[in-house]
Amino acid sequence: MTNVTMPMLETYPLEINLDRRQLAAAIDSLIACSEACTACADACLSEPMIAELAKCIRTNLDCADICSATARVLSRHTGYDANISRTLLEACVMACRSCAEECERHADMHEHCRICAQACRDCEAACKQLLAAMCPCGTPAGPRAVLKPAGPTDAGFPRCRAAVATTRQRCASQASSSGAPEIRRCARRRTRRTRWRPR
Amino acid sequence: MTNVTMPMLETYPLEINLDRRQLAAAIDSLIACSEACTACADACLSEPMIAELAKCIRTNLDCADICSATARVLSRHTGYDANISRTLLEACVMACRSCAEECERHADMHEHCRICAQACRDCEAACKQLLAAMCPCGTPAGPRAVLKPAGPTDAGFPRCRAAVATTRQRCASQASSSGAPEIRRCARRRTRRTRWRPR
Amino acid sequence: MTNVTMPMLETYPLEINLDRRQLAAAIDSLIACSEACTACADACLSEPMIAELAKCIRTNLDCADICSATARVLSRHTGYDANISRTLLEACVMACRSCAEECERHADMHEHCRICAQACRDCEAACKQLLAAMCPCGTPAGPRAVLKPAGPTDAGFPRCRAAVATTRQRCASQASSSGAPEIRRCARRRTRRTRWRPR
Amino acid sequence: MTNVTMPMLETYPLEINLDRRQLAAAIDSLIACSEACTACADACLSEPMIAELAKCIRTNLDCADICSATARVLSRHTGYDANISRTLLEACVMACRSCAEECERHADMHEHCRICAQACRDCEAACKQLLAAMCPCGTPAGPRAVLKPAGPTDAGFPRCRAAVATTRQRCASQASSSGAPEIRRCARRRTRRTRWRPR
Repeated sequence: MTNVTMPMLETYPLEINLDRRQLAAAIDSLIACSEACTACADACLSEPMIAELAKCIRTNLDCADICSATARVLSRHTGYDANISRTLLEACVMACRSCAEECERHADMHEHCRICAQACRDCEAACKQLLAAMCPCGTPAGPRAVLKPAGPTDAGFPRCRAAVATTRQRCASQASSSGAPEIRRCARRRTRRTRWRPR
Repeated sequence: MTNVTMPMLETYPLEINLDRRQLAAAIDSLIACSEACTACADACLSEPMIAELAKCIRTNLDCADICSATARVLSRHTGYDANISRTLLEACVMACRSCAEECERHADMHEHCRICAQACRDCEAACKQLLAAMCPCGTPAGPRAVLKPAGPTDAGFPRCRAAVATTRQRCASQASSSGAPEIRRCARRRTRRTRWRPR
Repeated sequence: MTNVTMPMLETYPLEINLDRRQLAAAIDSLIACSEACTACADACLSEPMIAELAKCIRTNLDCADICSATARVLSRHTGYDANISRTLLEACVMACRSCAEECERHADMHEHCRICAQACRDCEAACKQLLAAMCPCGTPAGPRAVLKPAGPTDAGFPRCRAAVATTRQRCASQASSSGAPEIRRCARRRTRRTRWRPR
Repeated sequence: MTNVTMPMLETYPLEINLDRRQLAAAIDSLIACSEACTACADACLSEPMIAELAKCIRTNLDCADICSATARVLSRHTGYDANISRTLLEACVMACRSCAEECERHADMHEHCRICAQACRDCEAACKQLLAAMCPCGTPAGPRAVLKPAGPTDAGFPRCRAAVATTRQRCASQASSSGAPEIRRCARRRTRRTRWRPR
């Protein structure tokens, strides 16, 4: 945990759409994972068996770049756009998992890979928790665990749909009243101001 | 177009999983978009109507960070992992579209927003084209435009499925022979070496 | 050259402290160098002689990160602070030169190193030109010591001294009247508004 | 403090040219400062008095980018190049100080600026300490000119001069025997392997 993430979140002048404690945990995990991956890539470069670590180095570099960008995006709350945060978190989960799997292969040989794999797993878990919290229907990438087919959006992937019937019905009723079946209009979110608006 | 992207791609010592020309176009679009967004955020900061541009600035900053990370990931071919590239490209499409929409709102008033919106649209298109090329089934985010429900993977989103019946059948037959309906096993890909392997 | 750098510079709503054409050239060189270094690091990872390229990969990664940060800083003009730009450009010159030297060692063997070395040299030159333009006395880090000429440092550009007697005297007289021998108070700069001020 | 920086440093397979504890402190300060600046820029964007915070936002963005790049460079030890680290640390000191000064102006009004200013000051101090440790003569940019003591420059740390007569003489003698008055040839460093070499 950095000593600034939570204090900075607490001083943000407007409402934040996500639980601040959970958000801080995710940001700090992302920062730590990015640092671990940067250092692991470099440590791999100095190992005698470097040729066997080429894929590990590459995955480390990707994971560092993606975690770093994700930490920045999650540190911004002005003009919050759930779609950007969600898709980026999904990419981050994927990068962390790939990097963890790769590092775990070398964890017995290289202590830096073992520590890095753990940082990736922690980050993967923190990102998934945040994703789960983002979709009020109760499923992280809620849209995809679909019970019925959904048309593609112009971005190529459907928006949030309810995975579980009861939740879906609440969502659907809300959607019908609001005109669009959007994540942010689901019941659990209703109690708070859910979209950033300029003062 | 930078004068280095394509030459560097041409000198990569192993095979690259994607069409080099299309990949270079995507990388250059990402680089240009990141630059435009960084500059647009700053230009907005110096406008008299800055308060109305707060969301625009934020979206610019997100888009710059995401495009920048995506350009780096796409510039690496060693140990290629289609899952990372694909999910990150999806996040990038989302960020570019959000930023384009926001900038377009101010395009009449601010020339920098107009140019930035165009750079975002170009980048969105280039990323979508690359996504389409990545999924041999013919659909970019192929997995999500599903004709039948798919169970979630542990990452929270299903893998690539065929969107169009004919393509799907080819895919399905391959999937059944290979045991897993993965992108990389589809017909069009078969002819090339599809996963990076250390020499 | 990206197709956005110069157009974005031209639409910045306030004055910019540097020549826009020269600034655009530097930003585009930084962007190209960052891309070349990212790609070269990855190409090195896939070479059979990877162990001999470990230092090259590391220097590539540093150079990419530093060029990328410098391009962003130079793309911002609001609240311009010459001290930040100057010291960062100096670091960038150093990183580009180190990376060029390292890549040049492998340029005969690896075409990607040859192209990358060239991108680094171009970037080094563009940064030095911008540094020279930043000090109105005619030499880079002008503000720091205006009293006697100085030889080049190991960074390859002279520390701030007045190179030409007449210019130096003007600078010195200005410095004495203003209390601080700052870049921005030199004669050639006087004719323009030299510090960013909010409207 | 992240929970990974020091553990990763401890597992680096070769020698590291700097004190690991001091290096970890600098990296963690850089990471925290980058996070604070990213969050502060965004918090400023949501303040009603945003127009007065334009320069603060810009300086925040610069500081975040520079600290982030510096943390990455310092996290790499393979093929260590003191010249890159040193000039980048100098740029970072400058960025942190500028940002701290700007944030301090708003610290009474905005708690996020107060916390960010503190993170910048902490980072500035950590970078200066590391710079001081890099020059075995006892003063930062040691290599550049070892002949007479110098006062602080406007960057807040003295240019490379020998501060203590005895150390300076040792440095000078070494410089003369080696042909170049470089950091790495000073007496205190001699006892360790001072340049990274491939195994």
